[in-house]
Amino acid sequence: MSEKPLVISAPEPRSLDLIFSDDARTALHERYDIFECEAHEVATLSDHVLGEARYIIGQPPLDGAALAKLKSLRCIFNVESNLFLNMPYDEVFRRGIHVVTTGAVFAEPVAELGLGLALDLARSFTDADLLFREGKELWGGDGNGSARLLSGSEIGIIGFGDLGRALNRLLSGFRAKVRVFDPWQPASTLRDQGVEPANVETVLSQSDTVFVVASATSENQGFLGRESFASMRKGAAFILLSRAGVVDFEALMDAVRAGHIVAASDVFPEEPLALDHPVRTLPGFLRSAHRAGALDIAFKRMGDMVLEDMALLDQGLPPLKAKRAERETVSRMRSKPVTRN
Amino acid sequence: MSEKPLVISAPEPRSLDLIFSDDARTALHERYDIFECEAHEVATLSDHVLGEARYIIGQPPLDGAALAKLKSLRCIFNVESNLFLNMPYDEVFRRGIHVVTTGAVFAEPVAELGLGLALDLARSFTDADLLFREGKELWGGDGNGSARLLSGSEIGIIGFGDLGRALNRLLSGFRAKVRVFDPWQPASTLRDQGVEPANVETVLSQSDTVFVVASATSENQGFLGRESFASMRKGAAFILLSRAGVVDFEALMDAVRAGHIVAASDVFPEEPLALDHPVRTLPGFLRSAHRAGALDIAFKRMGDMVLEDMALLDQGLPPLKAKRAERETVSRMRSKPVTRN
Amino acid sequence: MSEKPLVISAPEPRSLDLIFSDDARTALHERYDIFECEAHEVATLSDHVLGEARYIIGQPPLDGAALAKLKSLRCIFNVESNLFLNMPYDEVFRRGIHVVTTGAVFAEPVAELGLGLALDLARSFTDADLLFREGKELWGGDGNGSARLLSGSEIGIIGFGDLGRALNRLLSGFRAKVRVFDPWQPASTLRDQGVEPANVETVLSQSDTVFVVASATSENQGFLGRESFASMRKGAAFILLSRAGVVDFEALMDAVRAGHIVAASDVFPEEPLALDHPVRTLPGFLRSAHRAGALDIAFKRMGDMVLEDMALLDQGLPPLKAKRAERETVSRMRSKPVTRN
Amino acid sequence: MSEKPLVISAPEPRSLDLIFSDDARTALHERYDIFECEAHEVATLSDHVLGEARYIIGQPPLDGAALAKLKSLRCIFNVESNLFLNMPYDEVFRRGIHVVTTGAVFAEPVAELGLGLALDLARSFTDADLLFREGKELWGGDGNGSARLLSGSEIGIIGFGDLGRALNRLLSGFRAKVRVFDPWQPASTLRDQGVEPANVETVLSQSDTVFVVASATSENQGFLGRESFASMRKGAAFILLSRAGVVDFEALMDAVRAGHIVAASDVFPEEPLALDHPVRTLPGFLRSAHRAGALDIAFKRMGDMVLEDMALLDQGLPPLKAKRAERETVSRMRSKPVTRN
Repeated sequence: MSEKPLVISAPEPRSLDLIFSDDARTALHERYDIFECEAHEVATLSDHVLGEARYIIGQPPLDGAALAKLKSLRCIFNVESNLFLNMPYDEVFRRGIHVVTTGAVFAEPVAELGLGLALDLARSFTDADLLFREGKELWGGDGNGSARLLSGSEIGIIGFGDLGRALNRLLSGFRAKVRVFDPWQPASTLRDQGVEPANVETVLSQSDTVFVVASATSENQGFLGRESFASMRKGAAFILLSRAGVVDFEALMDAVRAGHIVAASDVFPEEPLALDHPVRTLPGFLRSAHRAGALDIAFKRMGDMVLEDMALLDQGLPPLKAKRAERETVSRMRSKPVTRN
Repeated sequence: MSEKPLVISAPEPRSLDLIFSDDARTALHERYDIFECEAHEVATLSDHVLGEARYIIGQPPLDGAALAKLKSLRCIFNVESNLFLNMPYDEVFRRGIHVVTTGAVFAEPVAELGLGLALDLARSFTDADLLFREGKELWGGDGNGSARLLSGSEIGIIGFGDLGRALNRLLSGFRAKVRVFDPWQPASTLRDQGVEPANVETVLSQSDTVFVVASATSENQGFLGRESFASMRKGAAFILLSRAGVVDFEALMDAVRAGHIVAASDVFPEEPLALDHPVRTLPGFLRSAHRAGALDIAFKRMGDMVLEDMALLDQGLPPLKAKRAERETVSRMRSKPVTRN
Repeated sequence: MSEKPLVISAPEPRSLDLIFSDDARTALHERYDIFECEAHEVATLSDHVLGEARYIIGQPPLDGAALAKLKSLRCIFNVESNLFLNMPYDEVFRRGIHVVTTGAVFAEPVAELGLGLALDLARSFTDADLLFREGKELWGGDGNGSARLLSGSEIGIIGFGDLGRALNRLLSGFRAKVRVFDPWQPASTLRDQGVEPANVETVLSQSDTVFVVASATSENQGFLGRESFASMRKGAAFILLSRAGVVDFEALMDAVRAGHIVAASDVFPEEPLALDHPVRTLPGFLRSAHRAGALDIAFKRMGDMVLEDMALLDQGLPPLKAKRAERETVSRMRSKPVTRN
Repeated sequence: MSEKPLVISAPEPRSLDLIFSDDARTALHERYDIFECEAHEVATLSDHVLGEARYIIGQPPLDGAALAKLKSLRCIFNVESNLFLNMPYDEVFRRGIHVVTTGAVFAEPVAELGLGLALDLARSFTDADLLFREGKELWGGDGNGSARLLSGSEIGIIGFGDLGRALNRLLSGFRAKVRVFDPWQPASTLRDQGVEPANVETVLSQSDTVFVVASATSENQGFLGRESFASMRKGAAFILLSRAGVVDFEALMDAVRAGHIVAASDVFPEEPLALDHPVRTLPGFLRSAHRAGALDIAFKRMGDMVLEDMALLDQGLPPLKAKRAERETVSRMRSKPVTRN
């Protein structure tokens, strides 16, 4: 009979192979007994398995009866990272079971792509490379009509969770003035990070570059619309990295089409996108097919995060690496399920 | 009769309009009398003009006779920024006339483009945007087969003048391990900047990304050749930002063509480049048509630099903003003249 | 009838005047109705008052009956900052009532004093000033026999909560190698902060300066003892900033008396300390009478913190500024009550 | 016959043992032939020795005849670090012989002491330790009546050479607003270092702490006088680290005596100071007997600096580590000779 704590593994749409490196996978099995199953099977596992399980990796649907049987449960590691309302969260929180998400692993890769896209919009190197391939390049200053620097510029960040912070860190060498709009963060927290708290109007109208890294919530669907883009500086750059739902995408395309702003986006109203969608050929718009976060190294960091938090929980300490779902906000998050890794 | 100090202006291939903002131009004229002429005319200006001139903006050819007449000369502001051996430098230095270059203004724009190109090579967003335009994009992790992070990676910088330092500053948020090869810099100076001094072999073989920002000198023509590229890590990125002369360009293309490394370059063996040059269509190679430095804001900073140093020199202090030509190295620099701004 | 939310205020040993600036106090009263009473009275307030109260400022003793009546309670702001087990925490947590502490305001003042004491131990400027007053000073290098730099040195930090982080931030300009021991923090969290995770033995034996900023818990009473000090480098500095309980104070004094290490402490086994306590005259030991944190500015930041978190809680969001008590650790904290501000 | 380059060593008041570590001393002798003599003997050494010498370590008096014989001389390493006008500098510069000083090694130790003294003035830990020894200590907030933070405060720095920069670096973790007055530095250089250029009046009147790190020149003797101190904020701290000559010391003591400001100084009008000098017992004044820079590690860095620059000069490159004397300013420096190390 094993002395190891039991872990139920149902990580779809991820897999253990995706999120654990070979070394981490070995450590996982050395420290824990792993019971692997499909997410939909978890609620109907035997009383014994449910009763012994200390952790769940995944976000299986659970009803009250199943939860009641999960007597040893300390933490649900939601590696999908969006929260579905598929379990009785009130009771989960009442019992002090942690529900944690591992989406912070995507912050660094998304921030790097975001900075790259911002530099590209500032210097047009994608378009310039295309012209070069075709023998139509402009040399030196002749090709730099609209070129500008990020260094010393004014930058706006909308949303200051893990991703906003990662982005701000990458910007630290640019000596830029960074303003942040995040209604869920106290002003002093923002100031402590070296950024200036601001309302969304100021961020939009006073920035040379605006990064949108806000999570989708029940309150911010489409909150960046036609007037938002109109209020931006002529020639400014708008970079959308989190969720398409927070912007009025048609209005964004119109603002770019009119030449008022330039834009880049990693997310789209539908994914995959229709082959005839007009954004595909819109000049002044850089397109990335939801590739910002999904790097192998990011997925592997999920496994590391799970192992580090399990080690804390095993010692009777609260988890610190993954982000806890909160009673107050669990029902306000509105991201769509992940359908591909 | 004016009490203002006299400045001879012959800044070609720049112009006063290029390098001075409106405000700076106004300040220049308020503080100094400006005598404008062609560079080739300077040596034959009247004894009076030569005798009164405190500063020259430009790099006019001067012989010993003209220099002897420039009795009040304190500083030559070489705004072309490459040094030609078109004046008797020995005598210039003997008399304590400063010769200064303003090329440092290009460091920040070049570093920003360099970082952008590096992020592009790491994430292939130029190629991905092209595929997206054509309806062939790969979504999410499917498109990230070769994607990698700069954060936490190993980065090599070859040359650590103004440009290398600007690049290192931009990298400060990436928590990368940065190694530098620069035979003209003491090891302790490099360590004080937070980078690790290394020989060129180590920089090439131990980096995920290599930036070449070394000035061309009489000693480093073509010093990065076939063996250099072969010694690099499989899949590493090579980014050439300073002068094409320091690399064997054919060998670089071969290394990219073979799939051993990826590369980006802002400089080319001939500029403009032949329409049938094979680099134009080489996959794995990003091309920029010498656009890295030539931003309007950079040129305008030249004028600011000139004004700040003139103010110091007017007080009897040495110049501090522009970079001094040195007796020891003036004849070792080997950049080609600038033919366009 | 007021529409304002009700706050029960019983902040002893603090007072509203201590923790709120005039402006913050005004804002508090504008936004909330404040019911002020003694801590021991809270449990027996009228059902109406208890039923309406959204927040408690203070840490009053509460029994199950009182808690049951506190039907609207969202958060207890424990401004004493040590947690007493004077309320049914299980039920508090079950109901999702937040209990938060405001001790983080002390981190910056304590860190500044700690750095000052470390610089003093490195350069002996307190002792040197005394000699100077007496006409016995040694000039220049003659007085620097044991002087050393913090810059570039090896520094150990034991405990990496708010205080350890504040200290590490202050040290950022010193280019030191910083190792941290904190069994409650994952290694990757420490690495992300730029410090090296290490066990306590390594921190003690490989540091030129050791800062102890660990909270007292049920597990670390006296864990730094005779062997710990013996393992330190000859001449190293030991600086105690958090709680006297974590060290064997006699052993610490012996190590200083023997000339093996030098030390400074802001905390003592009894406070106030007996007039004949030998530490008062121990050479090589700097004494501070628990003055590290108790700055007016720190207390005033408590009030700001309370206001910012109330604003979040009013919006239905979780608090972010003050630190939450955790189910897992609430019973493991072991600091003594504060008896003076 | 040796192939090694010849070095004349006359480093008084330093000695080779003082400025070279064992390893550096070994390297020096491996690479060079060292001819050791007294400074006053150098000018009369044999034609052969003078003719062969590539470097001089020291600052010996030289007349035109001796200089003419020093045909191979490339660099004079002035390790005293103050420049005396004891050689024909015009001819030295005309010939392109570098004269370099090594005083930058003192910047880091002086900055660390300066920061320590500033923290002490802010928190009175020297006086508090004295009271503690005498059993008169005040506990907690009772002892913190005048305590304040450097973090987030306004700091002024007068002089922004190596020492000012080192100080600013140490302050980087304090998130302070730093204003700098330095008439020899362009405003943009200061801004690039993250500080705000200001005139001396603003620095004095708008700072909570003022550091004076300006070199003594022919223009700034006693430039900080009675009105300067009167213009400072009530309770502000004045810390003198460079040269006593730049302040009116009587006026400084009066301002402290009146309780208007507090002060610390490492330098005094006479050194050593009379036993009955009133500063010895002046409350509110911290005294350090010119101990700020004279650390063994600083002297040893002089030797490292000399070796690194010799290596550059041997390659035909200009020196980069030690600071060059400048034609324009050599006669404007006014520091007294060093009489002790």
